[in-house]
Amino acid sequence: MKTDIDHIKAFAKKCFSNSNGSHNWEHTCRVYNLCMHIGEKERSDLEVLKIAAYLHDIGRSRQDKSKGTICHAEKGAEMAKSFLDEYEIPEDKGKNIIHCIRSHRFRGNVRPETLEAKVLFDADKLDAIGAIGIARAFQFAGEVGAKFHNPHVQPEHTEPYTKEDTGYREFRLKLSKIKDRMLTDEGRRMAKERHAFMETFFERFLQEHEGNK
Amino acid sequence: MKTDIDHIKAFAKKCFSNSNGSHNWEHTCRVYNLCMHIGEKERSDLEVLKIAAYLHDIGRSRQDKSKGTICHAEKGAEMAKSFLDEYEIPEDKGKNIIHCIRSHRFRGNVRPETLEAKVLFDADKLDAIGAIGIARAFQFAGEVGAKFHNPHVQPEHTEPYTKEDTGYREFRLKLSKIKDRMLTDEGRRMAKERHAFMETFFERFLQEHEGNK
Repeated sequence: MKTDIDHIKAFAKKCFSNSNGSHNWEHTCRVYNLCMHIGEKERSDLEVLKIAAYLHDIGRSRQDKSKGTICHAEKGAEMAKSFLDEYEIPEDKGKNIIHCIRSHRFRGNVRPETLEAKVLFDADKLDAIGAIGIARAFQFAGEVGAKFHNPHVQPEHTEPYTKEDTGYREFRLKLSKIKDRMLTDEGRRMAKERHAFMETFFERFLQEHEGNK
Repeated sequence: MKTDIDHIKAFAKKCFSNSNGSHNWEHTCRVYNLCMHIGEKERSDLEVLKIAAYLHDIGRSRQDKSKGTICHAEKGAEMAKSFLDEYEIPEDKGKNIIHCIRSHRFRGNVRPETLEAKVLFDADKLDAIGAIGIARAFQFAGEVGAKFHNPHVQPEHTEPYTKEDTGYREFRLKLSKIKDRMLTDEGRRMAKERHAFMETFFERFLQEHEGNK
């Protein structure tokens, strides 16, 4: 069977049980859009990228259910390999797709080696920063019942998430470091811009918090 | 007994059972900061404002428990009147404080008549917009398990909140209209600035959503 991107998309969507929230199918769709944008600028294989983008997080619910003992990138690569078996995909493209999925994780052990894997890695990280990143950080804080703002917590403390955590801490501890991890030129350019916007946002946020703006 | 602002603050804080979230004691503290800033610019009575700011939302949990049948401004004014009875507050100041609390609600029936009531009204509304307003809108969306973004819902539909609602809809439907309701010059100036920032934020948000920024 030839590849059918709508069929692949429908399969991927079904892997997300929770349609709401900050980390979900909508994230996958935004990463897909980013992959198309960066992939074109970087002259990469868009066919590989389309499939990899839709499938990159299909192992997510397995990771969540295992409370983190299963790696969603590793599990997603396995699931994708078995799902894609029914398609006639040239061997090198098939391997590239699986490598993209396996290596997209920020804290993963496998580093992206191909251009397409680097594009997917960048797209996935970009979706955590900028205006979308800010919104996701606060939406997540709401989902876990966290404080809104906590000027007394050291943003750099490294304990697991507690209700003392906030969107601002997420920015200081994690989001502000993403721009230095980009792997493609276009990814780097976009990350720099999104980072600058977050800086502007949180500078204003802190001033407003004091009633000064 | 003379007024003791720390004692009043401690009483007010106890009226908030839930210390986390998007609408709570932290909101009161930000409104207090805003009242001090605007109140000074508008040359209003800061003593009245300090007390009114801390007490303005003490009826909030009663409104929440009643599922909206009790008005928190009306109930808060009653509670404040009874609490402040033990203090020696000149009659006109006391009446002004109660009027501030009773008239601060966006959809209330009582309109702010005094300068101090106008300052509190503006401060309370300002805390719903700007960077703080954006963050609160998304944190609230997370608290109620709402979608992150929903390009297919008409932002103007007027049904009660559902999980189809989003931070962006909150902006389009409510937050974008606040700047036209300000009652003081300084409040208007600040609201205009905060509104412009929200416009910038959501313009970028929508572009990022499409993968274009």
